[in-house]
Amino acid sequence: MILDWGEIASRLEGIVGGDNITVDPVDLLVYSYDASLERGRPNAVVFPTSPEQISQIVKLANQEGFPVIPRGGGSNVSGGVLAIKGGVVVSLTRMRRILEVDEKNFQVLVEAGVVCADLNMTMARYGLFFPPDPASDKACTMGGMICENSGGIRAVKYGVTKNWVNGLEVVLPNGEILWTGGKSRKNVSGYDLKSLFIGSEGTLGIVTKALLNLQPLPETRLVASAYFKTSEEAGNCVYVIMRRRFDPSGAEILDRATLKAVEEYSGLRFPECGAAVLVELDGDREDVERRLKRLSQIFQESGAIESRIAEDEAEGAQIWMARKAAFPALTLRRPTARMEDVSVPLSNLARMFEEIGRVSREHGVEIATFGHAGDGNLHPILLWDERDKEEHDRAMAALKALWRSALKLGGTVTGEHGIGVSKLEMMGEEHGRSELWAMRAVKEALDRNNIMNPGKAIP
Amino acid sequence: MILDWGEIASRLEGIVGGDNITVDPVDLLVYSYDASLERGRPNAVVFPTSPEQISQIVKLANQEGFPVIPRGGGSNVSGGVLAIKGGVVVSLTRMRRILEVDEKNFQVLVEAGVVCADLNMTMARYGLFFPPDPASDKACTMGGMICENSGGIRAVKYGVTKNWVNGLEVVLPNGEILWTGGKSRKNVSGYDLKSLFIGSEGTLGIVTKALLNLQPLPETRLVASAYFKTSEEAGNCVYVIMRRRFDPSGAEILDRATLKAVEEYSGLRFPECGAAVLVELDGDREDVERRLKRLSQIFQESGAIESRIAEDEAEGAQIWMARKAAFPALTLRRPTARMEDVSVPLSNLARMFEEIGRVSREHGVEIATFGHAGDGNLHPILLWDERDKEEHDRAMAALKALWRSALKLGGTVTGEHGIGVSKLEMMGEEHGRSELWAMRAVKEALDRNNIMNPGKAIP
Repeated sequence: MILDWGEIASRLEGIVGGDNITVDPVDLLVYSYDASLERGRPNAVVFPTSPEQISQIVKLANQEGFPVIPRGGGSNVSGGVLAIKGGVVVSLTRMRRILEVDEKNFQVLVEAGVVCADLNMTMARYGLFFPPDPASDKACTMGGMICENSGGIRAVKYGVTKNWVNGLEVVLPNGEILWTGGKSRKNVSGYDLKSLFIGSEGTLGIVTKALLNLQPLPETRLVASAYFKTSEEAGNCVYVIMRRRFDPSGAEILDRATLKAVEEYSGLRFPECGAAVLVELDGDREDVERRLKRLSQIFQESGAIESRIAEDEAEGAQIWMARKAAFPALTLRRPTARMEDVSVPLSNLARMFEEIGRVSREHGVEIATFGHAGDGNLHPILLWDERDKEEHDRAMAALKALWRSALKLGGTVTGEHGIGVSKLEMMGEEHGRSELWAMRAVKEALDRNNIMNPGKAIP
Repeated sequence: MILDWGEIASRLEGIVGGDNITVDPVDLLVYSYDASLERGRPNAVVFPTSPEQISQIVKLANQEGFPVIPRGGGSNVSGGVLAIKGGVVVSLTRMRRILEVDEKNFQVLVEAGVVCADLNMTMARYGLFFPPDPASDKACTMGGMICENSGGIRAVKYGVTKNWVNGLEVVLPNGEILWTGGKSRKNVSGYDLKSLFIGSEGTLGIVTKALLNLQPLPETRLVASAYFKTSEEAGNCVYVIMRRRFDPSGAEILDRATLKAVEEYSGLRFPECGAAVLVELDGDREDVERRLKRLSQIFQESGAIESRIAEDEAEGAQIWMARKAAFPALTLRRPTARMEDVSVPLSNLARMFEEIGRVSREHGVEIATFGHAGDGNLHPILLWDERDKEEHDRAMAALKALWRSALKLGGTVTGEHGIGVSKLEMMGEEHGRSELWAMRAVKEALDRNNIMNPGKAIP
């Protein structure tokens, strides 16, 4: 069926108004990108301002048969927000109101387009914060975090986005508007649709509002760092920290290549070493200081060459800023950089580092690794030049080998970035036939015309 | 269609063997009951010993068109395990092996029929425990807890069953065997089927194995109690404890009627009061003692008549045993006792107590209330004589009024006991049309012949 995009655009304009739609080729080119290496050009981009407008857009999509692709800050790293089959990108960025702060229950109701860092800036005035904190927190929206079930540095203590969402408003693939959840801490009434939508990568509906739980800001946060000869030793140290239930609010590893890149990018200086472990402890001052002492001991026992404790919260914040710059810093090294997202059982953390080293050597591809080690979730960054066919082929082979290593170690190809289109080919290896059947059955039941972000998340 | 139960029974016997099936009328009568007031007589009860047998049973159910009803310990309080449309009860009680203890990752793989208390007895040898602890922990199975997403006293700190399940083996309604999840702490690969199955009350499949997370046993657990003039004052005290992020591992309220019944049943003695607050703190000794001091202060500020601290862990355990006996103790007071399970936002806890008082007075029905106040989850027990038509009608009206009060206060009719058949009539008031549509769409997609525990959980 050939679609009449002139007609569709004019009907979309009728829904959202002339200021909230673009079909300008330059704009469409911009919206062909996200933070992954994938591409997909939409036929139009709309910026609705209400769930009712989105409902009308989705109903039109069902009538005319075009794909609808929800998009927040565009910081997706698996191609999840790209119009790989054409269609209409629905940007949530003009729905960014904080609708209700419920101080009594530590909850907040937001529109999906609210940016994570903006939410936290406002919540700080109430002495509260929303714990999940992806590195992209200055760009990513709450809707995007919900669709991807984002984690981040503090997930190791506070859990991922799923653990902090109490209610959702979603425009279903049939255009109906659904509310699920509420302010009660416990609720087992009917199926857990909320958990089904969270992490479904925009393929089961468009999240328009979210009721979020908040946490009181801790009295203090302190960052300690330790430096090791090898990544494997660093991995073992983090395993010990987690096993002793140290409850850190951050437990990160940066390997040598990452440290070098961060040094050049940020101006920070680290000791000469093979890998660094960064640990954050939060809580009341007395408690944090007591635990810091035990932590220093673990660093020593684990064979740290050197360890440091940040002077104050400001120095700690500076270290996290540098950590969050790890990926942009690394992208400067080679023409092509691809961030991966493997996650393994904690006891296999050191072995995953061994595997990354092996894959890098065997395929002759530079891989720098950092990540949320306390969750077993690592971000190996593959660096190459995609214009060099031979090198590109090696990089692709290394990628697949990395994924298989994670699966072999009882892990997953994606801990927090999503399948999107980038990892779709691995779904058949990670999941059994029956599991894929059940996922598809759910998708088909809710999206009968397959218009909602088609071709993503599940094969 | 009239089913030939003689033929079906003989085919079932062919699958599970003669020792693992019963059609004896006395047995079938026994299996017509659970811990609710509902009834439903099965045509046969089978006791399979492997997922493959269950797969064959379910495939036969699809061919012949009979309902399949999974059942664990039978302690369900919403009629969820009853054969309300006849059919075959599948008891998981002969699949109760602990298959693998992974001490390195604090995880355990169990068959669905393992009893909660048995699991914890075994895990204690490793210094570990499975935190969710329903009052029925000596009877209920892990499969049942997963189907109901059970909570219990310690959910206030550790969360409900959903928070502790990392992987599931499920026999789908089409008879295929599915595995979902794994040992990685983070995983966003594909849809979250695990969360969909957990709490689906056996309507989307039969859980056969579960990979569970465990927690190291705390160094110490201490129970403090405070006694108040009214339930509303007790409710406010718990709200303050939760709002100051005291992180108790138990925060319960027992009203006057409950305390009296527990005293008679257990031999314990409580001070003369309108309601008691029981709080457990766990952790290392130093930390628990530090927090106990602050807790005593909150008790005082909240107007407690008296407060006590249990001498040691044994005395604390005795208090929890008494608390867990609250429902059986109350059932002795009148011929009929129905346990409800409303849950409201924490800030409305005191108001929910007011509502319970109002409903009791207006309908002339005795209601004793206790529950997981720190989660906003209360168990009002309605007491009456169902043989007295006039009193019965008043009790039913009171029940409906209670449910509506919870909804009016932004809560739910069920915090942890499930909808089952007991609360089905309220689904249309608690959930919107679109939400119910989506739940039904999921059910129909996975269970095309509607054979899996039909008539439960969703209308």
